[in-house]
Amino acid sequence: MSVPGATVADMTATEDTRAVAERYFTTMNARAWSAFGALLTDDVRYELPQTGERITGRGNYLRFNQEYPGAWQLRVTRLLADGSTASASLLFTVGGRQLVAVVFLELRDGLIARVTDFWPEPYDAPPGRDHLTEQAVSEQDRFVP
Amino acid sequence: MSVPGATVADMTATEDTRAVAERYFTTMNARAWSAFGALLTDDVRYELPQTGERITGRGNYLRFNQEYPGAWQLRVTRLLADGSTASASLLFTVGGRQLVAVVFLELRDGLIARVTDFWPEPYDAPPGRDHLTEQAVSEQDRFVP
Repeated sequence: MSVPGATVADMTATEDTRAVAERYFTTMNARAWSAFGALLTDDVRYELPQTGERITGRGNYLRFNQEYPGAWQLRVTRLLADGSTASASLLFTVGGRQLVAVVFLELRDGLIARVTDFWPEPYDAPPGRDHLTEQAVSEQDRFVP
Repeated sequence: MSVPGATVADMTATEDTRAVAERYFTTMNARAWSAFGALLTDDVRYELPQTGERITGRGNYLRFNQEYPGAWQLRVTRLLADGSTASASLLFTVGGRQLVAVVFLELRDGLIARVTDFWPEPYDAPPGRDHLTEQAVSEQDRFVP
């Protein structure tokens, strides 16, 4: 199987990637914007494939985060590092709701050069498969609409 | 930061995990159900957090895949392996639509013991941030509704 690598070619080591990824989420959750910004390349690219939106540049991406509404909190539930790429799942709580987000990070020279965020939404189970399924998802990934 | 590890405690090595994860998607896409089933533990657990559904056991999970409707095809666009855990993003095409899926795999003794699937949906960009954004998502993650 041919699997495309990260689009940002880089040799950042897995354990450095893991440390930067952990710090990305810790500083985001703490609104420690100066420390958060220090993890990003000048030309960092943030993508939200579900809306088609892209934000380019550290200043714009910082402002997007600073302006993001709501007293949200996030908790990292999975964090994988593999070479210069990381992925994570999060529980994101805001105003009594709980969402799951999935994030991919790509590093260049030890800094985050590309962020891709996915925000799945809960939906009703399609009919015709309840002979195989039960309603029982782990707390790790529980949506609270 | 405290990040919970995989819920399936295991010492499967990263490169074994990567090979199994690649084979999981290759055999799924080929409907090679016997080879696909051979990658799963007897008690494999499949979770769809967005619907709250869980499927338990190799037989049930195989049947779920075999019965899944549509002439779908998948293409892996990212694949990370980290110890006994893997994550991937996919482009999933069916009936002219193109979706992005994100999957986490957890291995035990070299077999897949837990699968968590996320199926994000496209949605309209919220107002109030087009001073920061442009419409320009990479082909890698493009939704075609």
